Amino acid sequence: MNQKIFEIIRNIKKPNYSIAKETQKILDNLTKPKGSLGELEEIAKKVAVITGIVKPVIKKKFVFVLAADHGVVEENVSAYPQEVTTQMVLNFINGGAAINVFARHIGAKIFVVDIGVKNDITIADILRTNYINKKVNYGTKNFLKTRAMSYKETEIAILAGVELIENLINEIHKKENETFLVTLGEMGIGNTTAAAVITAAITNAKVEDVVGRGTGVDEKRYKHKINVVKEALSRHFRDKTVDVPFQYADTHRHTDISTLKLPLDILSKVGGFEIAGMVGIILACARYKIPIVLDGFITTSAALVASCFNHSVKDYMFAGHLSSEKGHRVQLKFLGLKPILDLSMRLGEGTGGCLAMSIIELSCKILNKMSTFDKAKVARKITTENEIV
Amino acid sequence: MNQKIFEIIRNIKKPNYSIAKETQKILDNLTKPKGSLGELEEIAKKVAVITGIVKPVIKKKFVFVLAADHGVVEENVSAYPQEVTTQMVLNFINGGAAINVFARHIGAKIFVVDIGVKNDITIADILRTNYINKKVNYGTKNFLKTRAMSYKETEIAILAGVELIENLINEIHKKENETFLVTLGEMGIGNTTAAAVITAAITNAKVEDVVGRGTGVDEKRYKHKINVVKEALSRHFRDKTVDVPFQYADTHRHTDISTLKLPLDILSKVGGFEIAGMVGIILACARYKIPIVLDGFITTSAALVASCFNHSVKDYMFAGHLSSEKGHRVQLKFLGLKPILDLSMRLGEGTGGCLAMSIIELSCKILNKMSTFDKAKVARKITTENEIV
Repeated sequence: MNQKIFEIIRNIKKPNYSIAKETQKILDNLTKPKGSLGELEEIAKKVAVITGIVKPVIKKKFVFVLAADHGVVEENVSAYPQEVTTQMVLNFINGGAAINVFARHIGAKIFVVDIGVKNDITIADILRTNYINKKVNYGTKNFLKTRAMSYKETEIAILAGVELIENLINEIHKKENETFLVTLGEMGIGNTTAAAVITAAITNAKVEDVVGRGTGVDEKRYKHKINVVKEALSRHFRDKTVDVPFQYADTHRHTDISTLKLPLDILSKVGGFEIAGMVGIILACARYKIPIVLDGFITTSAALVASCFNHSVKDYMFAGHLSSEKGHRVQLKFLGLKPILDLSMRLGEGTGGCLAMSIIELSCKILNKMSTFDKAKVARKITTENEIV
Repeated sequence: MNQKIFEIIRNIKKPNYSIAKETQKILDNLTKPKGSLGELEEIAKKVAVITGIVKPVIKKKFVFVLAADHGVVEENVSAYPQEVTTQMVLNFINGGAAINVFARHIGAKIFVVDIGVKNDITIADILRTNYINKKVNYGTKNFLKTRAMSYKETEIAILAGVELIENLINEIHKKENETFLVTLGEMGIGNTTAAAVITAAITNAKVEDVVGRGTGVDEKRYKHKINVVKEALSRHFRDKTVDVPFQYADTHRHTDISTLKLPLDILSKVGGFEIAGMVGIILACARYKIPIVLDGFITTSAALVASCFNHSVKDYMFAGHLSSEKGHRVQLKFLGLKPILDLSMRLGEGTGGCLAMSIIELSCKILNKMSTFDKAKVARKITTENEIV
């Protein structure tokens, strides 16, 4: 395994959970009944735990939209033609897609990353401020016929994700009490099929429970899609499942590179480039203690793989929302993550994660901007002898 | 009944539901799979239906935080002393409360309205930009002993709410395709007790299902609070329930002023001034086709009363979130409203509604800012013979 990736994985540590208590103390001194902000208080504490900052301030919010094509579209698994990946990348760059509207609404910066789109992206230089070329290859191979990506390609894609985060850290100065928030987004016609194979392989769930309608396939194509996923599992993972890979991700065994081959193998067999790139982003965020916000089914399939590399990764993640793409519920249950929003969305691009990112930011503003009882001269709770305060 | 209030109620019409189809057509031409934005698409359509604008633009967002005191605090129903109402009003004006942080986060303007606080609000003139004095009286009377407010006071409080909205409309110029969003917020030590009585009276729910912990009463005080609510129902509504008042709100009978006395009677018996004021805001918003966003248990008790005056009112309302205050679920079920957010919050002040208001605004931005398939030159869905497109 690539030494750089290995070092990132090895340096992902369990966060310091005890910081949550200090943050709760601050929350309990603010002018509101204890615990009355519910999940927002839990979210604020989680950001504190992830970053190691008792009163974290969100310096900036980013959405990385990784785009790539999938060889498996040859098998007619999608409701949209393959060229839509390229067309949507241009739409992202021009600012007309849903994620652009979402990101502007919450004040986040978007990076559109071509990590494996089938066509070259030809745009005017003036539009390149949001665009990053990290193309590893012109789409994956059809995983019903062969490996989607070579090992080498898989590692390059993961490293591309790592670099995106390292560049962010190097280019933008953060104060000691500041952190970034990063939302994962993706675009790639065919990628719900790849994500379904990954999810079934890792969670051992029934194929029917992880294959959804994607961009909206009809009944006939849906059944076909299920068969394609079954065939892929059968071809690449023999008895349709792999051993539960979390065994391999045992943090005590991280010094042994050989144990990390399984998640790399899954990625290489199924793809896609955007999923591998997101694995790199997640690993780097966990390594550098940056909270990462998942979007839907595809981004969470990357989270599953990243968690195989290092079990602690999931402590650095927020589930932005619950997608209405069927398998997302299975994934979140497996990771033990509770979604912040549930708006029956299933668009991808980072839309659900982006909206949640604004709520996460708000939770930190509460910590930093609300008055305390003493400062605002507000009386505290009446204590009676029977009451636990 | 006051003629002005009657005219407002009489002029609340059923919205034109057919506009939703036109708005859906626009949504279906945007660069995303059909229906993939889930609830956001439903929300956008509801704003269109409410306002009568196919592609509504949100001109401005407002939070009205109405504050008042409750005579029933004499009965020891709250975890906080009564002076907290006044102290929190000052906190709102000074910008240090949760709702201030929420409103700044989403770019909404707050109005803090004293409609019945026990003390006079003494502040420097420079701070008065957010503050509106609509005080009807210095708190309600204890409804275990007498009527909380006189009929006259009740009407004045409702009219104060109406005026808040009419002033907004007069002062801020809207273009034809523009609308406001209004979130209701409140502050009043003791008001979950009043809201519980109103909710039990109108929905006929079990008292135990509508009395919650409020700001956080202990077990002993919680049981006492249940008894206080039961006693109030028994005193004011004989057999602990009133006839289902929606009978009285039948839109066909609106020409008869006498049928509108029941909701007025409930308000007058229980209070509080802030609830009556919010009833006025809701009625005026429905009258002038402005979408209104509810917050939690107190604001929704106002929504229940407003719906008794005119059944169509609920078509103009969004349930911003599901509060963890117990009775809120009962109220929303009764009104047939589905909450946008569910973050286990129970603070009030308009916090849940405020956060939802940002999502409602986003749903309208989607309508107005996303590219169409044609404009962005993105290919449409592949249609097969078996597919229903």
